Parts: sequence; structure tokens; C-alpha cells
Amino acid sequence: MTCAILSIGTEITRGELVNTNAAWLSAALTDLGFEVTEQVSVDDDTPRIVATLDRLARSAKIIVATGGLGPTTDDLTTSAVASFLGVPLERDAGSLDHIRRRFERAGRTMSPSNEKQADFPRGATVLANPVGTAPGFEVTLPPSGARTFFMPGVPREMKRMFEEQVAPRIRDLSPNDSHQIRFRTFGLPESVVGEKLAGIEGAHPGVTIGYRAHFPEIEVKVLARTQAGTAAEARDLASAAAAEVRERLSDVIYGEADDTFPGVVGRELRTRGYKLAVAESCTGGLVGHLLTREPGASDFLLLDAVTYANSAKQAVLGVDEDVLRGHGAVSGEVAARMAEGARRVSGADVALAITGIAGPGGATDTKPVGLVYLAVATAKGTTVKERIFPFSERTQIQTVAAYAGLQLVREACR
Amino acid sequence: MTCAILSIGTEITRGELVNTNAAWLSAALTDLGFEVTEQVSVDDDTPRIVATLDRLARSAKIIVATGGLGPTTDDLTTSAVASFLGVPLERDAGSLDHIRRRFERAGRTMSPSNEKQADFPRGATVLANPVGTAPGFEVTLPPSGARTFFMPGVPREMKRMFEEQVAPRIRDLSPNDSHQIRFRTFGLPESVVGEKLAGIEGAHPGVTIGYRAHFPEIEVKVLARTQAGTAAEARDLASAAAAEVRERLSDVIYGEADDTFPGVVGRELRTRGYKLAVAESCTGGLVGHLLTREPGASDFLLLDAVTYANSAKQAVLGVDEDVLRGHGAVSGEVAARMAEGARRVSGADVALAITGIAGPGGATDTKPVGLVYLAVATAKGTTVKERIFPFSERTQIQTVAAYAGLQLVREACR
Repeated sequence: MTCAILSIGTEITRGELVNTNAAWLSAALTDLGFEVTEQVSVDDDTPRIVATLDRLARSAKIIVATGGLGPTTDDLTTSAVASFLGVPLERDAGSLDHIRRRFERAGRTMSPSNEKQADFPRGATVLANPVGTAPGFEVTLPPSGARTFFMPGVPREMKRMFEEQVAPRIRDLSPNDSHQIRFRTFGLPESVVGEKLAGIEGAHPGVTIGYRAHFPEIEVKVLARTQAGTAAEARDLASAAAAEVRERLSDVIYGEADDTFPGVVGRELRTRGYKLAVAESCTGGLVGHLLTREPGASDFLLLDAVTYANSAKQAVLGVDEDVLRGHGAVSGEVAARMAEGARRVSGADVALAITGIAGPGGATDTKPVGLVYLAVATAKGTTVKERIFPFSERTQIQTVAAYAGLQLVREACR
Repeated sequence: MTCAILSIGTEITRGELVNTNAAWLSAALTDLGFEVTEQVSVDDDTPRIVATLDRLARSAKIIVATGGLGPTTDDLTTSAVASFLGVPLERDAGSLDHIRRRFERAGRTMSPSNEKQADFPRGATVLANPVGTAPGFEVTLPPSGARTFFMPGVPREMKRMFEEQVAPRIRDLSPNDSHQIRFRTFGLPESVVGEKLAGIEGAHPGVTIGYRAHFPEIEVKVLARTQAGTAAEARDLASAAAAEVRERLSDVIYGEADDTFPGVVGRELRTRGYKLAVAESCTGGLVGHLLTREPGASDFLLLDAVTYANSAKQAVLGVDEDVLRGHGAVSGEVAARMAEGARRVSGADVALAITGIAGPGGATDTKPVGLVYLAVATAKGTTVKERIFPFSERTQIQTVAAYAGLQLVREACR
């Protein structure tokens, strides 16, 4: 069953944003067992939107479109669909009410331009948007009845709508002869992960192994597809290959499916009843942000002291001025004193400290950009690690340093 | 002069990688003055590649394609182009030599499969690849002579080939008649921004205004295009409309082009020589992360105390236990004491504190999810704001609260 993905928006065709929606939807549809043969992005231009729908509807059985549902004059998707179908737009009272209530909850009055977000081509099925203003809709396109879904371009709204509204409507159309198992890894580059898994595809006919880099993680996807087989056969095939993947990558697999690295670290702290404190310098709050953007961090996180200035390292964490002067802020000694200080001040069981040079400035003859000291203090003592992360971008160094710090916290939980 | 971008590869249509090439090429072509009307990605399937080339060649004057030039059996681009043109493949001796020498330099012997990377459709112009194995090529497609460029999918090789081989060949074809000015705003939803700018397009023919939501910001793009005009005329046209945009949105425009909100806040602190301290609770380190992911934060940031537990608010910031007990951690009183404590501990000029309920848990009868207290302490005293952010997602509440806090810091700089 072939699918096409249509992304609508001049911001895409001008290259002002990278079209992550298309990749996400492709992966989601592939996971459901569909074959995506084409992704198209067109600018905000009614004739082009209409011509593209006309073309895609002749080959694809399912079309998933995003973008152009906003309140402004360059949001043309809904009217283009109505024009293609030759039907009028009709206002949906329930959607209007939903939009108005969202504005009221925000303490604002709805503006007239938002009313058009409650207009849909006659005969469309409205798709609820629980996290945004614009609802989506489904229509069936001639000549052969392609089921076509229109969703907002905002990734968060699109993902939620796809999972809650679109996936349940199309799941039964899937040939259902495939099964995928996803592993999440941190600690090795993609090329090395690939080499470690060499030969598995050959030993398991019907299995393909895919890789996806979400810096600094590598996701490994084991996809099994049986020729006219059953879902159970595909599942068995995937499981057999996955067992081998799990064995070969045991050092770096931290979770499966939708696990997140900070979430796994939080789970291990929670399981053991450990309280955590963090002291950050070069990562500037990223460790705290990673741990707290998921709910539940209050179960284990007491304090994250981002002591950016040396004076703050002294005042908040009690790091000795002599140690700072003697070794420099980027040193194993200072990392150790930061971790111990954070543990003492907060009363935590485990304390992590990170200090380093994220760049582009700050390097010296002996301390290059990418040099990071990590320390973990527990009741058993303090351990320090020196790492040099070979990345050129500041945010990459910060991200991999934060991950490396969380990895040390995991190890301290063992 | 319209352009289309074609990306070839099943790894794209399966969502295994995000198509950054298309965005990069769109931006590069837009910068050269071309109008990109469509991006298409198709899987490794000869009939689909041929059909897509046939279709694009009927509308676009320039087609830029990437992918499918590798040595393996699923690299089908070159043979598909030859088949579409009805010409044979011919081996190019110079390219074969280039490929062989690359292997020799790497100390490896060339495998037979690599030889096909020296094959091109008869009549094609070879495009050199100084940083990889596969050369690219240019052909002219019927019916109307679309100039069509094929490049490797490896981003580094593609970018170099585009800049050195493709851009010089098409630069003279550019109408060079457009100019764009981008504004960055924070503080109003997209619909209200759109309404405030109503009528500007009508008053400035040739100008289109585009919007892009990048939560919690709205970017406003003023694009002027003159019919057969000069670049200078387009610039004047854009400037006239932009002046009106600037006036109508003066309250919410914080910058232009590639300015960032944390960057602008940092610039204002730096200009005044102010040192900043932050105390975060519900935002969990996000304010620190936003300020430090750009270089230079050490000029102004002394401390960000993420006091997630009440005990940390007491131990690090000296918030009174009575105040915490009497008003609760999410209260204006506690926000004020946190800001004052952060200022006192760090010796900063300005201190920001944020405490609130990011959800999904933690709400009470009187304190809903989204309730946030923000406080700024300076030598002149402490001001507190209560806000209820009407978002359902934890990360949205954290993001908008962090922005609102940075906005207060900006105001304190005035």
C-alpha cells in the first residue's frame, strides 16, 4: 500500500527550515508497514497545491499532508483542497468553539482571522488538535479514493494528531507483514555501530537494519518484512535478529523504542531512591534541562548549580580559591571539588560535576576546545574523568558532555 | 526562473534520514535569486525517477538532483537519466582515473562496482568531485531544455560540488530581482501578528509577508520581488514595507535576520556591563542552557541556581522555610526571595527567578498547570509577575516561561 507525503509551505521550498516532518512521517508510516514512495514539498501556491494533490491521488492510496492550516493569508491548504474537490468551505461549529475556548483559556479574545481555521471542505472529517489551534481534516480524493489527511505543520501538533487521529484510521489498511524493533544507543559513532552489526542482515533474510543519528545518539532499527507472511512471522524474524543486535551492542544500548537517555537515568535514580545534585560549568544548565523537560524529576533532582563564574563556584559550592588558581577552572581537581560541594550543599546521594571548554574561545596551549572534566561524588568517594570530545560545534560539545555526565550517574547507580 | 529539487533514495522516503540537502539547496538557490517551487524525494526506483524527471522538466527551468550515484545496486540515478534521454551510458576515462587515484591514495584497490561511477549518459557534462569518489553530471532535459544537475547525496560532497560546479553555471540565469528582510518577534501569537500587519501587502505591490512560528517566537519575512526590476528596486521595495512592519510590531520585534532572543538579552547585559544571576525551579536549567549555548555568556552570567527541591532553595538561596511553608514554592513571595538570594550569593547586578507548575502533575485547586511567578531583583528593588501560560505541554510552559524571564531581564536593562 503506497503512501505519499506532501509538505506545504514556502518556508520549506526556500530552505528556511529543514523538513523534519517528512522524515518523521515517513518513519511512522514505514513502522506501520506502509511503503512511502514519494515526499513532495511545494510552496504556498494554490494551483501548485491543487496540481500536486491531483497527481499524488492518481498513484498513492494514502496521502499525508502538513502545513498551510494557520490563520494568515499565506495559509492556503484548506481552500486549495475545497477548490480541487469542487466543494464549498463550511464552518464547523465544534471546531470554532474549540478555537475560541483555547483563546479564552489564554485570557485573550479570538481574532477574526482565526475563524477560518474552523472552515473545512464540505464532507471532510475533522481531526482534533488537542495541543494547538488548527484542527486537521481527512478527505477522500478522486479518481480512486486516496485517503488524504491534512495536519498542521507545527511538529508537536502534527505528531500528536498523527498518533491519535491518523494512525488509528489507517492501521487496518497496512499489509501488516512487517515488524520493527528499535534500539537506542549512546557511546559509539554510526560507522562503528554499523561495523559491529556487519553480517546480521545476511544471516537473517528479510531483515534490514537501519541507522538514524540523533546527535549524540544512534538509533538502530531492525525491520523484518515477510513476503506474504503473517505479522507473527515478521515479529519472530525481527526478534531473532534483534537478539543478535542486543548482544553485539550491549555496551551502548541504553533503551528501546521511545526511551530517552535522561529518562532512563531518572528511572535508575528513582528505582534506587537516590537523590541527585549537579554542578555545571561549560554545559550551562543543559544537564538540568535534559533531566527536567520530562515530568517526574522532582523525585530525584535536588539541585543543579550552574556555577558559570569562578566566584559562583566558590560562593555556592565552596571550591577553594587556591584550587581554582592552581589548577584552573577546567581541571579534574575543580570538577571533583564542584561535585563534592554540590553533594554537601544539597544533601544528595550522588553529585555530578562538569567543567570544560565548549569553545569556540577559551582554549589554551594545554587545554583544547572539547576538553571536559567530569566528576561524580558519592558516599564511596569521588571519581574524575578527563575527556576530549572531537567536535567543532559548541552545542555538540555541550550535548555530548551532558550525556557523558549522565552516563557517569548511571554507572554510579549500579 | 523556477527551480525544482529532486532527492533520490529509499533512506529518505523511509524516514531514516532527515533531508537536510533539500533545505540547503533551497536556501542556496533562493540566495542566488531563483524561486524554488518544489522539492521531491523518491525512492530508489527507476520508473519513479524517470517519471519524476519527466514531470519536473515540464515546469522547472533548473533541476538540482542529489543521490543515487554510489557504487551499489540500489544506486540507479545515472542509468535512469540515460533511459529517460534514450541515450547509452559511456565510460569517462578521466573520471575512471580520478576514482582509481582516490582509492590508491587511500591505500585500497578499486572494486569493479566503483567503475560504474565513471559512466555517464552520452552528451552529459561531468562535474568534478574533489572530496569524494562519485563525480556529478549535467544534462539538458526535453521538452524545453531544463538544465539538470546530478550530484552525490553526501552533504559535504554535494555542497562543494554545488558551490564550485553548479552555482557558476547558473548564476547568470538568475533574475536577481528579489530582496528579503526578516524580523524576529516574541510576545504575540501568529494570528495577532498577522492582523497587525493587515493591509501592508496591498499597500506595497510586489511585497509578500510570510510568517514562521518557531515556538515561542514568530518570524516575519518581508519579501519584495519586482517584475523585471533590478536588485536595488527590490531592496527599496522591501525596505519601505519593512519600515511599516517595524513600526506596527515595535513592541514585539526583538531583532532581525539571525538574531536570537537569548543573544539579544546577552548583548544588552554586555553593553551595560551588568552581571546576571538566575534562580530556576520549574524551568529546570533551560534559562541557563539558552544563555550558554551561544558563546560569550561568561561575559555576564555568574550563576544559574536550579533549586529544584525546597531544601535547595533554602540551602543555596537562603529562602526562609517559613516563606516556603506559608506561601508554597510556587508563589510570588518565593520567586522574590529566590531572585534576591541569587543576587546576594553571586554578587550580580540583576537576578531573575522563575518558579511555577510546568505540569502535567503538581496542580492544586488554586494553582493550575501553567501558573508561573517571575521575579527580577536589582539594586532598585524586586519586581514580581504572575503569569498563567495557557499551554498543555510541559516543554511549552518551560520554554515560554524562560522567554518571559529573559524578557524581564531585558526590561531591567533599560
